[in-house]
Amino acid sequence: MTTMLDVTDVTAGVCCTPLVREPLTAAEAEQLATTMKALADPTRLRLLSIVAASDQAEACVCDLIEPVGLSQPTVSHHLKILTTAGFLTRSKRGTWAYYTLVPGALDRVSRFLVAS
Amino acid sequence: MTTMLDVTDVTAGVCCTPLVREPLTAAEAEQLATTMKALADPTRLRLLSIVAASDQAEACVCDLIEPVGLSQPTVSHHLKILTTAGFLTRSKRGTWAYYTLVPGALDRVSRFLVAS
Repeated sequence: MTTMLDVTDVTAGVCCTPLVREPLTAAEAEQLATTMKALADPTRLRLLSIVAASDQAEACVCDLIEPVGLSQPTVSHHLKILTTAGFLTRSKRGTWAYYTLVPGALDRVSRFLVAS
Repeated sequence: MTTMLDVTDVTAGVCCTPLVREPLTAAEAEQLATTMKALADPTRLRLLSIVAASDQAEACVCDLIEPVGLSQPTVSHHLKILTTAGFLTRSKRGTWAYYTLVPGALDRVSRFLVAS
């Protein structure tokens, strides 16, 4: 049983040097795979890209339902996975929840994939 | 039913502008998610990192079994997924299969995740 990697661990050096430079340990690979799983879903990638491309990299859940054509509970489920994985933060204002891209979170994941 | 994205499609512009710049289309998200799924497994990440960190970014399947502690059929299954996804190429020399990292394949995926 592994826990979802908080991508902020990455900057703290918990995980990993770029994977092309030296072999990942079993523990590093588990953490990185768990983070990748959060991204390995088309709905979550679309939600993430809509939030990221929004003004101030923030979007109301009310604006995320129609573009992906799914129910609000399903959309909220996917947003929760992205939030737990450290890609989004959630804040409640009035009736609606707003999601904001965590600055640098995607960059940190991308850094594991490149050589330099 | 989606097919595994050949990451060479990426350089041909089939998929995608960085996801933080503009929302992914449904088709782009399906392709990218399928590629991410190939990476969202700890054994595959370790195999990929061992191959990538090897001399000339090439490794014999015979040298990949012990480090991950799995059977040869299981290791070969994971290597096939990485090959189909465009991250590795396979060549047979004598008794053994050798796997080589496809130059730029990981870089191309990482580029979808960054802003610039």
